[in-house]
Amino acid sequence: MRKLYIIVALSAASLAFSQKALEKVEPAFWWKGMNNPELQILVYGKDIVKNEIELSDGIQVKKIQKVENPNYVFITINTSEINVPKFRIHVKNGKKNIDSYTYELKQREPNSINRNSFTSADVMYLIMPDRFANGNPSNDNTKDTAEKSDRKNHGGRHGGDIEGIIKNLDYLKELGVTTIWNTPLLEDNEPSYSYHGYAQSDYYKIDPRYGTNEDYRRMADELHKRDMKLIMDYVTNHWGSQSWIIKDLPAKDWIHYWKEGEKGFKRSNYRMTTQFDTNAAKIDTENCMDGWFDTTMPDMNQSNPLVVNYMVQNAIWWIEYAGLDGLRVDTYSYNDKKGIAEWTKRITDEYPNLNIVGEVWMHDQAQISYWQKDSKISAIENYNSYLPSVMDFTLHDAIGQVFREDSGWDSGMQRVYDNFANDFLYPDVDNLLVFAENHDTQRFNQSYPKIEDYKLAMSLILTVRGIPQLYYGSEIGMSGDKGKGDGDIRRDFPGGWKEDSNNAFTQSGRTDSQNQYFDFTKKLLNWRKSKEVIHTGKTLHYVPENNVYVYFRYNDKERVMVVINNNTNAQTLNLKRFSEGLENFTRGKDIISGKEFSLQNSLNVPAKTSLIIEL
Amino acid sequence: MRKLYIIVALSAASLAFSQKALEKVEPAFWWKGMNNPELQILVYGKDIVKNEIELSDGIQVKKIQKVENPNYVFITINTSEINVPKFRIHVKNGKKNIDSYTYELKQREPNSINRNSFTSADVMYLIMPDRFANGNPSNDNTKDTAEKSDRKNHGGRHGGDIEGIIKNLDYLKELGVTTIWNTPLLEDNEPSYSYHGYAQSDYYKIDPRYGTNEDYRRMADELHKRDMKLIMDYVTNHWGSQSWIIKDLPAKDWIHYWKEGEKGFKRSNYRMTTQFDTNAAKIDTENCMDGWFDTTMPDMNQSNPLVVNYMVQNAIWWIEYAGLDGLRVDTYSYNDKKGIAEWTKRITDEYPNLNIVGEVWMHDQAQISYWQKDSKISAIENYNSYLPSVMDFTLHDAIGQVFREDSGWDSGMQRVYDNFANDFLYPDVDNLLVFAENHDTQRFNQSYPKIEDYKLAMSLILTVRGIPQLYYGSEIGMSGDKGKGDGDIRRDFPGGWKEDSNNAFTQSGRTDSQNQYFDFTKKLLNWRKSKEVIHTGKTLHYVPENNVYVYFRYNDKERVMVVINNNTNAQTLNLKRFSEGLENFTRGKDIISGKEFSLQNSLNVPAKTSLIIEL
Repeated sequence: MRKLYIIVALSAASLAFSQKALEKVEPAFWWKGMNNPELQILVYGKDIVKNEIELSDGIQVKKIQKVENPNYVFITINTSEINVPKFRIHVKNGKKNIDSYTYELKQREPNSINRNSFTSADVMYLIMPDRFANGNPSNDNTKDTAEKSDRKNHGGRHGGDIEGIIKNLDYLKELGVTTIWNTPLLEDNEPSYSYHGYAQSDYYKIDPRYGTNEDYRRMADELHKRDMKLIMDYVTNHWGSQSWIIKDLPAKDWIHYWKEGEKGFKRSNYRMTTQFDTNAAKIDTENCMDGWFDTTMPDMNQSNPLVVNYMVQNAIWWIEYAGLDGLRVDTYSYNDKKGIAEWTKRITDEYPNLNIVGEVWMHDQAQISYWQKDSKISAIENYNSYLPSVMDFTLHDAIGQVFREDSGWDSGMQRVYDNFANDFLYPDVDNLLVFAENHDTQRFNQSYPKIEDYKLAMSLILTVRGIPQLYYGSEIGMSGDKGKGDGDIRRDFPGGWKEDSNNAFTQSGRTDSQNQYFDFTKKLLNWRKSKEVIHTGKTLHYVPENNVYVYFRYNDKERVMVVINNNTNAQTLNLKRFSEGLENFTRGKDIISGKEFSLQNSLNVPAKTSLIIEL
Repeated sequence: MRKLYIIVALSAASLAFSQKALEKVEPAFWWKGMNNPELQILVYGKDIVKNEIELSDGIQVKKIQKVENPNYVFITINTSEINVPKFRIHVKNGKKNIDSYTYELKQREPNSINRNSFTSADVMYLIMPDRFANGNPSNDNTKDTAEKSDRKNHGGRHGGDIEGIIKNLDYLKELGVTTIWNTPLLEDNEPSYSYHGYAQSDYYKIDPRYGTNEDYRRMADELHKRDMKLIMDYVTNHWGSQSWIIKDLPAKDWIHYWKEGEKGFKRSNYRMTTQFDTNAAKIDTENCMDGWFDTTMPDMNQSNPLVVNYMVQNAIWWIEYAGLDGLRVDTYSYNDKKGIAEWTKRITDEYPNLNIVGEVWMHDQAQISYWQKDSKISAIENYNSYLPSVMDFTLHDAIGQVFREDSGWDSGMQRVYDNFANDFLYPDVDNLLVFAENHDTQRFNQSYPKIEDYKLAMSLILTVRGIPQLYYGSEIGMSGDKGKGDGDIRRDFPGGWKEDSNNAFTQSGRTDSQNQYFDFTKKLLNWRKSKEVIHTGKTLHYVPENNVYVYFRYNDKERVMVVINNNTNAQTLNLKRFSEGLENFTRGKDIISGKEFSLQNSLNVPAKTSLIIEL
């Protein structure tokens, strides 16, 4: 698309005949039998608006929408009225057919509509593909992508790819992970610092340094073969500055802060409270929603129906094409509030069971709850985002402090207890993503270098309500300091590159310390897989005493007692206090140590130790 | 009543004839024409249950309720059926009338039902009566109260009284205060540390060291003469251990944690989140609601209808008797949740305009909102407290930090902005009590010894939404360190004792520094009195930049711009950003400095300075 850009920049007249009349058709194909039979096809070519669009087989165009830019036409068809698998889109100048495109309406996979999605029965594993494993060194650099591979540059492309993920799926399967969320894999053609992939330049194309669209679909297939799931990291808030659409905007109002003659830039104030604050000045609210997340990320205008529709169809396209099991949405709470709700509703209308988790990085449970579907908090303002899942950032905040703290009125394990005390604010507490860290935060093992703290944190997030999310590499003890820049919390997974001396993907390749982390994580994850009581059980928790947090997960069939002793001394619990949780159980087995415990009188818990006792 | 306690402890038979058959009748009198015509009269005397109760004038007893303790009978009458102003309650043993009591049904004051109450048009001044002014040294010690006056003891009785408050009402009137909240004035007969008055021993009697019931009513009258209001500090959660009822409980279940043969004690865990936490263990919830606030404060059981009814009638009695303008309820969120809602509803059913502010000392707006009447937060759990007003403790928390902080992502004036960003969580934001300090917190002037910070804080709490509450003495620069104990934040007001060398109640008696504090406060308070735009206007605020917080209060008629420069340097504001707030106004006058400002381009604000600009 870089080439096209240059051409368009030259005089139109001199080049009128050196171009195809049809440069782009998006989506490139579609499916029959969608819940919403309407399809809006973007047709792009030099001055295409001067031509006529005609469909073969007598197919009727329901609506033709023209925009400011003469290179775009949007045509709407009703797929339920089309009975051929393929038809032609003709571009005509008078009677002359100057270009055409064969449009295919594919058959959907069986049960596509009612596909299952990720739930609290899953454990999600977050991968930064550039930093995980380089399965195909031949695609580290490609002709049509600007930034070249440089593994020595912390902010550069390191060569990790889809093939690298596929090659290590058995590692993840053994670990006990059931779902992968990878940071964006679509093309990000920024000239530098493009490895994170959040400045996407082509919404229908996997970045060639990661592989092809077919590779992506193959990864989904390989995951499904292993009974694992794939979640796409979807970015609605902003597109990359190198996007072909951004470079030749359909209309100024596709992005915010467009300036005559140039692409505008105004940084967001990042003040997400303005989205619901009844006292907020309009200029601040606009600046939050409309400001750019970064210089390379023009802010998309989701109040433009064409923009929303493009994003809805694009997300559906990937779900159908690759057989996705869910979405993670970046910077959810920076979007146009109404537009993102429409986007979310339309996708979940199409796939009623599809789970979508939004990044709502706030530090107040009422504020996070605001963004979850059917929230009673947002109902105060008659708003509903329709977003099924949000992230439990306040739990993350607590985890960041608790394991180094002594017992106090609001410190130590009390922080964690206090987090769950507000659970009633959430409409669906089982659909919260719980995590100790992600690709934007300090690495857990950096904050807490001792494995004993890692074990406490894992015991916690793998037994509380919600969907646990791990971050690649922590399961082998990887650390990284946010203070040194994002590159340090996104180090390469050891063994992902053939030149690596330490290969942590295999037992024999792992150091003793790495095996200790791995084995503990593997044990908990594999235990958790079948534990419905952890997936959907109720919670009963007790005010921590002496920095020991005790809670029960229970349903009609099962009951688990979790004890997290964050104290640096052993603690003896008088079990009488926990009779509501223990019911009539007098014995239980700790799934971590394998030990049986009598639960009749007291329970001794060693320093900095967790027990997960099945009753 | 100490004597009675001793008698009851002795053998009942030997003393049967040395007592009056009727020791107590409560309420001692009542009023005709109440919304709820039912009245339940507590009749108390040795073995009274063995006798018969009969009313004169053919008045029917609707219900006689006996309890465990034979010394109590509760009789219910319907006052709407009684057409005499006085009738007799006879205690009969067979046909013999062994005692009787003349019961009066008084006429209510005109408009008693629809009395006005405190609103956001008021400014509330919190007084600890023992520490404000000693207007009548002759009542410093009384025969029937245990603790004697000792002004040298920080935790002792200092002799302040109702007469002292009355004598200084003109001082408060001049200052611009419109409403007084005094900490409890009812008898607290603990042998030591009784000056705070929260362990009340007689719910129908002003502590004689403060004065008489008539003195209390006279104080209300004197306030009303000055167009000022009186709020009673009401304690429902606990009674004092020296209460005559506690000493001879009607039944064990009047208090929590009663133990056979002794009064029990179990300290509350103070974990108020258990009141709504759907994960909370019952034992923790019970311990919060039922645990004692302190050793001298037996926790009352508001799930006992007799207890709730006693408290409802008692509160109504004081409202009618003294002509109260409102209530402040202590430790509101420690009460039995359902019982306190019933109490609150019944009082506000009786007085539809009466305002009641509850102490809900939490640090999360959703949690505070939970306790305000018609909260959408508590509606999640189908709970309604019916409490009209709650305290903005999160604003207090912010004020405790902000004035020493630099500008940061979530520090400096941003803390204050963030507090108001959650206003949508409150059902009635104008009915929040806003305050920088109270009798339980660090003194503001201790945290911030410079008057410039005092001015910023006063500018803030006197111009934001809600009901401002001041704390006695801060208006003349008083400080006090919570770290040194509560006595230090409750020092005597200088000039309240005739031996005081510094009399801050008069201009000539005040030091220069005291006059600076006083004059600033007086100016703002008296300006605020008539400013409907501050009382009930809407708020429009801007994300702080460089530690400068700008907001507007506005209604259809008026508009005020408030600028709080918390930066230690002068700041120049580009006014273009504030056009939504400024509308078309180009000039305004700062009510603090009296200066006129042009508001067309920029505005210079000196370091650590606030402007309150009327447009």
